[in-house]
Amino acid sequence: MGNSLLHQLIEAFTFLPGVGSKTAQRFAYYMLERDREGASRLAAVIREAMENITRCANCRMFSEEDLCWICCDDSRDESLICVVENSSGLMAMAANTDYQGVYFVLHGRLSPLDGIGPDEIGLDQLKEKLTGNKVRELILATSSTVEGDVTAHVISEMAAGLNVKTTRLAQGVPAGGDLEFVDATTLFNAFKLRRDY
Amino acid sequence: MGNSLLHQLIEAFTFLPGVGSKTAQRFAYYMLERDREGASRLAAVIREAMENITRCANCRMFSEEDLCWICCDDSRDESLICVVENSSGLMAMAANTDYQGVYFVLHGRLSPLDGIGPDEIGLDQLKEKLTGNKVRELILATSSTVEGDVTAHVISEMAAGLNVKTTRLAQGVPAGGDLEFVDATTLFNAFKLRRDY
Repeated sequence: MGNSLLHQLIEAFTFLPGVGSKTAQRFAYYMLERDREGASRLAAVIREAMENITRCANCRMFSEEDLCWICCDDSRDESLICVVENSSGLMAMAANTDYQGVYFVLHGRLSPLDGIGPDEIGLDQLKEKLTGNKVRELILATSSTVEGDVTAHVISEMAAGLNVKTTRLAQGVPAGGDLEFVDATTLFNAFKLRRDY
Repeated sequence: MGNSLLHQLIEAFTFLPGVGSKTAQRFAYYMLERDREGASRLAAVIREAMENITRCANCRMFSEEDLCWICCDDSRDESLICVVENSSGLMAMAANTDYQGVYFVLHGRLSPLDGIGPDEIGLDQLKEKLTGNKVRELILATSSTVEGDVTAHVISEMAAGLNVKTTRLAQGVPAGGDLEFVDATTLFNAFKLRRDY
């Protein structure tokens, strides 16, 4: 089938995370066989999204407007800033917690080997927001990985220099976690960080 | 976020098989964060494919030309026809067997409850190909399911009426299949259909 359009269609899907040639083939055949309308709609929306979705000028979350829906919401407390690594982190926080402050999306985490430094994750912009004593708490919700921890540490030092109080999401045994199945690092940390009861 | 473009983008992905809202979200964020170029390419290819890919006039396989790449191949033996349920079946046969005949793609299998009858899977067209004594073997490669078996049976009766020899892919224990882990129906059939050695 060489470089046919069908082959190109299958190939084009493989850039998505977790999509190998088998899944891509399944997607392509499905849309050709069953839902050409859905496929055209998808193509149109992708195109529109790529053209119009940029980052919120305030918090760097994806937005088609200058300010995202969270930063536009006047009821939110702007003196609380929650730092998340990416949009999925933000959505998870928004969906599952009662947090009513604003966010700051890094779109990555410090990883010098991958060429991701302070500039790439917008630390300059964050520093600006922390100056002027308008922020009373900076919540670090970067992921619980080595790079997430390093990123949190660097940001916390920056905040300390500006006299901003910093907190970090609790780390420990996950809900429903039977001790038997909790991994070693998690359990080690949960013991080390045990709290008064 | 209501009906934002981001929301529409995530939503649009969920029409794909096996893609729920979590995966759709991952796709959407991935393309926005990491690969807008790949996304635009995908959108363009989907659009082009939906406009230009139709079915081969001869075998019903997807093709952007009037005849697909298999039917255009003069070296293939047109007196052998292999009936497959869908394009993935055809690709699997083409990739893994040394079959050198042509194909006929049903794009489905008989399933009266779902409204899929002989017309939907092109049996008229197949019948036409079987008349005139030009076909010496019709190979039934429909799936090894109840519906696949019924479809094969109906086609074999049609072929018998036209004096065309019909064969069916062997059913039995899969390669590497430890008897312990082979399911009951497969083992039952493998025993029933045991062959001389």
